[in-house]
Amino acid sequence: MSALKNLQDLYVEQLKDLYSAETQLVEALPKMAQAATDPKLKAGFEKHLTETQQQVKRLDSIFTDLGEQPGGHTCQAMKGLIAEGSEMIAQEAAPAVKDAGLIACAQRVEHYEIAGYGTVVRYAEVLGLPMHVTQLRTSEQEEKDADLSLTSAALAINQAAMRG
Amino acid sequence: MSALKNLQDLYVEQLKDLYSAETQLVEALPKMAQAATDPKLKAGFEKHLTETQQQVKRLDSIFTDLGEQPGGHTCQAMKGLIAEGSEMIAQEAAPAVKDAGLIACAQRVEHYEIAGYGTVVRYAEVLGLPMHVTQLRTSEQEEKDADLSLTSAALAINQAAMRG
Repeated sequence: MSALKNLQDLYVEQLKDLYSAETQLVEALPKMAQAATDPKLKAGFEKHLTETQQQVKRLDSIFTDLGEQPGGHTCQAMKGLIAEGSEMIAQEAAPAVKDAGLIACAQRVEHYEIAGYGTVVRYAEVLGLPMHVTQLRTSEQEEKDADLSLTSAALAINQAAMRG
Repeated sequence: MSALKNLQDLYVEQLKDLYSAETQLVEALPKMAQAATDPKLKAGFEKHLTETQQQVKRLDSIFTDLGEQPGGHTCQAMKGLIAEGSEMIAQEAAPAVKDAGLIACAQRVEHYEIAGYGTVVRYAEVLGLPMHVTQLRTSEQEEKDADLSLTSAALAINQAAMRG
């Protein structure tokens, strides 16, 4: 990676990290949906896949606006998060316990993205890029809403998991 | 990993994941503090190291109460998060830009832990373990406060990073 001279350089690096994270997630979410038993949870993962594809498009339009390319960086943290999701998918578990475990993995993913979007929103504000702020805030809010939906889904699933 | 029959089994697995995450972080935070230039940011990392050591002790006492051992699991996500932190430490960058980058990494870590503690707090509630709930909520709140402190530190640092 070349030297980061200023916030603009760091902004581009952080956007590349998010782009890598989101594209990895587009591959992982269908597997999470398939592994889930609870119909609402399954539908939630499928809905979030559609949102994630939209978030990739928002990042694409920001890269175009900046005259930059999104590739060339692999988000190591998302790789680890998805590895944990894959472990849970492969894990022998009672159905409700597996659903609870998938929620635990997915909320870690959502929080990663809440932190990531929170960061680039602040950079875009300082850099005076209001169109980017609007687009990135939309994605940030979707991640927060997805996290709340998972918390809500966990209420019944954790009770069922306790009975095993 | 043996089969997860019920929420209690998943609770132990999730606690092991957090334990691995926190002990990895105890190793990483001094390096983050050393790489930081801003004195408040440096002090913030050092303060959070002390909190993290305390969080490990809380988890230790919970494992003792459960008659379980904390080892035998590596948190892959924290491994990835710390790998990103190490990349930022090694990255050639203007001092304020590096500080901003370290904050970006640290807030991802905090959010990982907010999600992790949020999960085990809910499990402990369902499992009827009020002493665990109290201890895990204390750690969760420390992570949330650390995240807010980083957001606050970022205000001046991002402005300095813009100038490069």
